[in-house]
Amino acid sequence: MKAVQYRGAGAEPVVVEVPRPVPGAGQVLLRVTAAGVCHSDIAVMSIPDAQLPFPLPLTLGHEGVGTVAEVGDGVTGVQVGEAVAVYGPWGCGRCAECAQGKENYCLNARRLGIFPPGLGAPGAMAEYMIVDSDRHLVPLGDLDPVGAVPLTDAGLTPYHAIKRSLPKLVPGATAVVIGAGGLGHVAIQMLRALTAVRVVALDVSQEKLDLAREVGAHEALPSDEGAAALVRDLTGGVGAQAVFDFVGATPTVAIAGACVAIEGDVVIVGLGPGRLPVGFGALPYEATVTSPYWGSRGELIEVLDLARTGLVSVHTETYPIDDAPVAYHRLHEGRIRGRAVILPGA
Amino acid sequence: MKAVQYRGAGAEPVVVEVPRPVPGAGQVLLRVTAAGVCHSDIAVMSIPDAQLPFPLPLTLGHEGVGTVAEVGDGVTGVQVGEAVAVYGPWGCGRCAECAQGKENYCLNARRLGIFPPGLGAPGAMAEYMIVDSDRHLVPLGDLDPVGAVPLTDAGLTPYHAIKRSLPKLVPGATAVVIGAGGLGHVAIQMLRALTAVRVVALDVSQEKLDLAREVGAHEALPSDEGAAALVRDLTGGVGAQAVFDFVGATPTVAIAGACVAIEGDVVIVGLGPGRLPVGFGALPYEATVTSPYWGSRGELIEVLDLARTGLVSVHTETYPIDDAPVAYHRLHEGRIRGRAVILPGA
Amino acid sequence: MKAVQYRGAGAEPVVVEVPRPVPGAGQVLLRVTAAGVCHSDIAVMSIPDAQLPFPLPLTLGHEGVGTVAEVGDGVTGVQVGEAVAVYGPWGCGRCAECAQGKENYCLNARRLGIFPPGLGAPGAMAEYMIVDSDRHLVPLGDLDPVGAVPLTDAGLTPYHAIKRSLPKLVPGATAVVIGAGGLGHVAIQMLRALTAVRVVALDVSQEKLDLAREVGAHEALPSDEGAAALVRDLTGGVGAQAVFDFVGATPTVAIAGACVAIEGDVVIVGLGPGRLPVGFGALPYEATVTSPYWGSRGELIEVLDLARTGLVSVHTETYPIDDAPVAYHRLHEGRIRGRAVILPGA
Amino acid sequence: MKAVQYRGAGAEPVVVEVPRPVPGAGQVLLRVTAAGVCHSDIAVMSIPDAQLPFPLPLTLGHEGVGTVAEVGDGVTGVQVGEAVAVYGPWGCGRCAECAQGKENYCLNARRLGIFPPGLGAPGAMAEYMIVDSDRHLVPLGDLDPVGAVPLTDAGLTPYHAIKRSLPKLVPGATAVVIGAGGLGHVAIQMLRALTAVRVVALDVSQEKLDLAREVGAHEALPSDEGAAALVRDLTGGVGAQAVFDFVGATPTVAIAGACVAIEGDVVIVGLGPGRLPVGFGALPYEATVTSPYWGSRGELIEVLDLARTGLVSVHTETYPIDDAPVAYHRLHEGRIRGRAVILPGA
Repeated sequence: MKAVQYRGAGAEPVVVEVPRPVPGAGQVLLRVTAAGVCHSDIAVMSIPDAQLPFPLPLTLGHEGVGTVAEVGDGVTGVQVGEAVAVYGPWGCGRCAECAQGKENYCLNARRLGIFPPGLGAPGAMAEYMIVDSDRHLVPLGDLDPVGAVPLTDAGLTPYHAIKRSLPKLVPGATAVVIGAGGLGHVAIQMLRALTAVRVVALDVSQEKLDLAREVGAHEALPSDEGAAALVRDLTGGVGAQAVFDFVGATPTVAIAGACVAIEGDVVIVGLGPGRLPVGFGALPYEATVTSPYWGSRGELIEVLDLARTGLVSVHTETYPIDDAPVAYHRLHEGRIRGRAVILPGA
Repeated sequence: MKAVQYRGAGAEPVVVEVPRPVPGAGQVLLRVTAAGVCHSDIAVMSIPDAQLPFPLPLTLGHEGVGTVAEVGDGVTGVQVGEAVAVYGPWGCGRCAECAQGKENYCLNARRLGIFPPGLGAPGAMAEYMIVDSDRHLVPLGDLDPVGAVPLTDAGLTPYHAIKRSLPKLVPGATAVVIGAGGLGHVAIQMLRALTAVRVVALDVSQEKLDLAREVGAHEALPSDEGAAALVRDLTGGVGAQAVFDFVGATPTVAIAGACVAIEGDVVIVGLGPGRLPVGFGALPYEATVTSPYWGSRGELIEVLDLARTGLVSVHTETYPIDDAPVAYHRLHEGRIRGRAVILPGA
Repeated sequence: MKAVQYRGAGAEPVVVEVPRPVPGAGQVLLRVTAAGVCHSDIAVMSIPDAQLPFPLPLTLGHEGVGTVAEVGDGVTGVQVGEAVAVYGPWGCGRCAECAQGKENYCLNARRLGIFPPGLGAPGAMAEYMIVDSDRHLVPLGDLDPVGAVPLTDAGLTPYHAIKRSLPKLVPGATAVVIGAGGLGHVAIQMLRALTAVRVVALDVSQEKLDLAREVGAHEALPSDEGAAALVRDLTGGVGAQAVFDFVGATPTVAIAGACVAIEGDVVIVGLGPGRLPVGFGALPYEATVTSPYWGSRGELIEVLDLARTGLVSVHTETYPIDDAPVAYHRLHEGRIRGRAVILPGA
Repeated sequence: MKAVQYRGAGAEPVVVEVPRPVPGAGQVLLRVTAAGVCHSDIAVMSIPDAQLPFPLPLTLGHEGVGTVAEVGDGVTGVQVGEAVAVYGPWGCGRCAECAQGKENYCLNARRLGIFPPGLGAPGAMAEYMIVDSDRHLVPLGDLDPVGAVPLTDAGLTPYHAIKRSLPKLVPGATAVVIGAGGLGHVAIQMLRALTAVRVVALDVSQEKLDLAREVGAHEALPSDEGAAALVRDLTGGVGAQAVFDFVGATPTVAIAGACVAIEGDVVIVGLGPGRLPVGFGALPYEATVTSPYWGSRGELIEVLDLARTGLVSVHTETYPIDDAPVAYHRLHEGRIRGRAVILPGA
C-alpha cells in the first residue's frame, strides 16, 4: 500500500510502497479515508534524527478517519465497515490520567514507548493504518470524512484549550485568539458556539484576518505592538478573560501577557519558542499561564457532536496521497487557508 | 406618589397615593422607570394574611429599574441621574452566602426581617422606591428600561438555573425547557446563546410553543404524557442532561424525572406544588434534583451583559401604572405573551 | 475450583465446584486472594428470578482482589504474579461516560449485556475469576488484600459520593453520615481525611454509633425523629452542607431532607425504598438530592492511594470460602461490624 | 492615640501620637486589640516615595482585629462591643469581582483611590482604626485576638492559594511548600487539614525546616539545587500536583517549575523578583503558573472557621505597640519564628 513517510533530517516527505499491516489481538485495521496535514509534523521533521524518541522511517499523519477493514482477536467495540475517527494521543489506558480519558497526559507513555500515530507509531497518511485499541476510535456517523478529519487535532486541541477556560468566559467577557490559521479559525467558531463573549482575533496576515471575521470574530486586528492596547481599550481597561495563542512566538506571548485580565487565562497552544515570564507583579493578579497539549477522549466525542450541529466547520483543501509532499510544502510557506487534507483512496 | 399595593387576602392590587419616601444613610432613592409583573406576586397574594411574614399593605414589584433621584448619607457608589437595575433578593451582606454575592441565599435575612422589594419591602411598582444599599444596584448603561426590567428576575432566575448546569451541557447534550412563558422563553434564548446543545421546549399552549420556536427552540412539543418518551427518542434513549421546569406542577415534574439522563439535572424553578421523589432506583443514576431561587449579584451583572450582546431579549407588553391591576388580571388568565411591564412615569 | 453461587429465589448461597475459566483475548485470569460480602448481594438475591437481567447460577462477589494468574492474547498492561484490585462497574469503555472512566454510568452496558462481576458476570467469590480487560485492574502494591478488598465498593462508593460534595465541605461546614455500617464507617474516615468539617453520624444501633466515634465522628447520635432538630441546633440553625444516607429508608431520607442546609447536598447511597420529594418549597433553597452509584476508574486509584496514607481503613471479619454462606447470614442479621471478607485461598 | 507610621523612604517605622478618628456614615471605628507585622510592609517601605500611589505618612498594619467602639450613621451589621476581624483588601463592593466577594481583585479600586488599611488607608497598627464598611468585618467569636490576627493575611493568602488547587490535590498527590515562614507554616497545616496529600516543605533555614516538620510536613528538605530532583524521586518521577512558592525568588520559582507535574499548579505567592517562563515545552504539559493576591471575603470566613477547629494555628511573638519598630527590625533580619503581632492596648 502507499504511505507518506518521513525518512530523516533534511528529507522531504515521500510517498512509498509498504506492506499492508495485519491487526494483532485487540487491534483494528482501518482503511483510511482522510488524513490531516499539520504544522506539528513540520516541527517533528525539524528535529535532529538522534533526538527523535522513535525510529525512522515514520509514516506521517496524526489526524485520521477511516472505515474498519479488519479487527484483531478480542475486539468487540467496532464492526467491519464502520466509519470512525482516530483519537491520536494514545496512552497506556490505565494510569491516573488515562483512567479519566486524558491519554494526552498519560504518565507511562514515554516509558512504555507508546507514541501517537504519525508521531512515532505508523500514522494515517497511508491507505491503511493500525489503531492499537478500539477505545481510540470514535464513531463518525454521517460526518463527511474530509471535514471531520482535522477535528481530531485542529478541532480537539482548541476545544480542550477553550473548555478549561469556559467558567471565566461569562457574558461580558472577552476572548482573544492569536493566529487565525488551522487551529485558530476553529477556535473562533467554538468560542462563538459555546459562549456569548466578544471574540477578538489577532493575526499578521490580512487574509487570515478576513477568514477570522468570516468565521465569526467580532474584531480582527493586526497582531502587532499596538494589539494589546487595543484589546485593553475595547474592554474598558479590564483586558481579556482568556487569550489563546496558537502561534507561541516571542511577540505573541508578550501580547497575550499584556492584554490578559485579572484572573484571566493565557493559554499557549502554538509550538513557537515564546516564553511568558510569570511571578508576582509580572502579570495582573492571578492571571494564569499554561501550555496544554491536544485533548481527552471524552472531548473528541464532544468535538464531533459539535461539528454535527453545523456551528463549527473547518476550511479544507484536499490532495490525493501522491500530492502529500506538495501539501506540506504549501503549509510550510503559510499558503494553506484552513487545513490541508490528504485522501489516500483518491 | 402613586403606588400599586396589595392590601390583603381576596383583594385585587390597587393603585393608591402614598408619601414619597426619603433615603436614610446608606440608602438610595430611585425614580422608577419600569417595573415587572410576575407570577410570584400572584402566589404571594394567595397566601392567607396571617401567614405572611411581613405587614400589609405591600407595594408590589420585585423587578425594577430606574434612575437615581437622591442618595442618603455615606453613599458613594452611584450618582444622581444614573440609570440602574435593582438586584432584588436582598440579604444581610455579610454572612457566608452574602459574602459571595449570593444574597438570594442569605442565612440571616429572615431572622433580621430583610425582604426583597415588592415581596415584603416596598417595591418597584411606584413612582419612587427606596433601595437599601448601592450594592443592590447594577448600572443599566444604554439598555432600554422596558426590555431590561424583566431581566432582574425573569432573566436572572433562569440564568442562575442554567449556569449551574453548564458543565453538563456539552455539545451533543440536550436541554429541556418546560413552560415557555415569562421565564421559559428567556431560558431558551440563554441556552442557545451559552451552549451548543439541542433545546427542546415543552408547553401545553400552542401559542407558547410557537414563541418557543421563534426564540430558538430546536423542538417544541406538547407537554403531555407522551413528552418524556419523545425526548428519550430524540436522544437515542439517553435522555436530557438538564431539564428546567418553569411550571413545577405535578405532571411537569413527573415529565422532568422521566426524561432526565444519567447524571443529568432536574431543576424545578416553577412555584407549583409538584414534587419529584428521589431515592435509589427512582431516577437514572446520579440524576440530581433541586429547586433554586433567583440568582446572585454577580449573575445579574452577567445577565445585563448578555442582554447587551443582543442574543437574549424579553417579549414585553407595557402598561401605565394605573393599568397595573389589568396586567395582573391578564397574567392570571395566562394571556401575557412574554412579560408584562408597568411604566410608573407614563 | 470452588465458587460461591446464588442459584435462584429463596436459595441461600452455596459453595460449588466449577471449572476454572480460561482467559480469552484481552482478558485476565486472577487467582482471587480476597472477596467482599455486600448488602447489595442480598438485595440481588431478593429479586424474583424472572426479573433478573442475567442468567443463574451467579458466582457472587463484586469486590475482588487477586494476583494475575494468566493473561489472554493482546494483554500488555499487567504481568503474571502482579497483585491487583478489580474495578467492578464494567462498561463498554468507549461511550461518553466510559471515555471519562465513569464506567459505572456506561450508556451501553445494559444494551450490550455487560454486567459487573458478581452482579451478572461471574464474580470474585471463587478461587479464580476472569476480568474482561486490564483497564479494570488497579495495582494493589503492598496493600493488604483483606483490608483493601472492601475499598473496591465500600470504599469507592462513599468516596465518589463525598468527592462530588467536596466544594461545599469548606471549613465551618457540617456533614451528616446516616448509617455507620460497612460504607458509613468508611465515609466518616474519608470526611475526616479530606475535609475540616464537623462530622455527625446517625445510626439506630448503639454499637455502630460507638464505631462511628471510634473512626472519627465528632458527634454520634440516634437516628430517630429528633435527629434533624439536633443537627440544626449543632449548626446554629443552618443545617448540614451535605448529608450522606447509606441506608435510604423512608425515615432516613426524611431526616436527610430535614437537616440539609440551603445549597446543601442530600446524597442517597443506600438501596432502601425511601424517597425524598423535591419541589419549590419542599426543601431549603437549592438543596440538591441525588442517588449516585459506585464510582469511576480514576476514583478507585485515589481510594487505594488514600488507604496507603493510613488515614482510612476498613474494619473486617474474615471467613474461609466454605463459610461464605455464614457470612451472608450474619450480614443479613446486621451482625457484621464493618465488612465481611471471604478468603478463597484459605 | 498612638499609631505606628511609615513616614518616607529610608525611615524606620515610628510610634507617633495622632487624633483618634471619628466614623462617618457607613463606617465603623474599631479599638484594635491586635495587629500583624508582615513582609509586605517592608516591601512597601522600600518603594521610592514618588512611586507610592498614596500619600505619607502611612499608619501601618493590614492585619487587624478589634472590638467595635463606635458605628457611623446607617451601620446595622455590627454592634458596639463586638469582636471582629478586618478583611483587608477593600474594593468598591459593586464591580463584577466585588459582587462575588473577591474585593482583592476589585476592578475599580485603583481608579477610585481605594486602598487596604495599612497599605494606603490608615491601618491597624494604632489604638483605633476606621473600617470603611461593616461588610469588611467578620465576627471573631471566641477566637484569641493574637492567634487570629495573622489569619487575615498570613492565613487568608495561603488559604486562597490552596483552595484553588484543591481539585488537583487528590489522595496520592503531592504538594510542595517553598518557604516555611509566616505564610508557609500556615500553608502546611492547611494542606494537612484539607487534603490527604503528601506535603513536602522546602526552605534554606534549618530552623524553618524544623518548624515545617513540627506543623505537619511529611518531608522537609533544603531548598537547593537538588530539591526538584528529590521531589521527582519521592513522586516516582511524576512531580508535584501543586507547588506553593511563598518566596518568589529566582531560585525558588526555578525549583517550582522543575518539580511540578503534568497538569500541576505552580502558585507564586512570594513577592520576590523570580519569574518562571511558560511556553510550549518549557514545563510539563498544562502545568499552570499564576501569582494570586490575598483572598476573598468568603474565604476569610472559612479561614476563621478553620482556626476554630484547632487544626491550624499560627506561631506568634507579641510586642507592645511601642516595640513595633523592633518587630519590623527582627522580621527584616529573618528572626521571627512564625508571625509577629503588635498589641496596641498593651
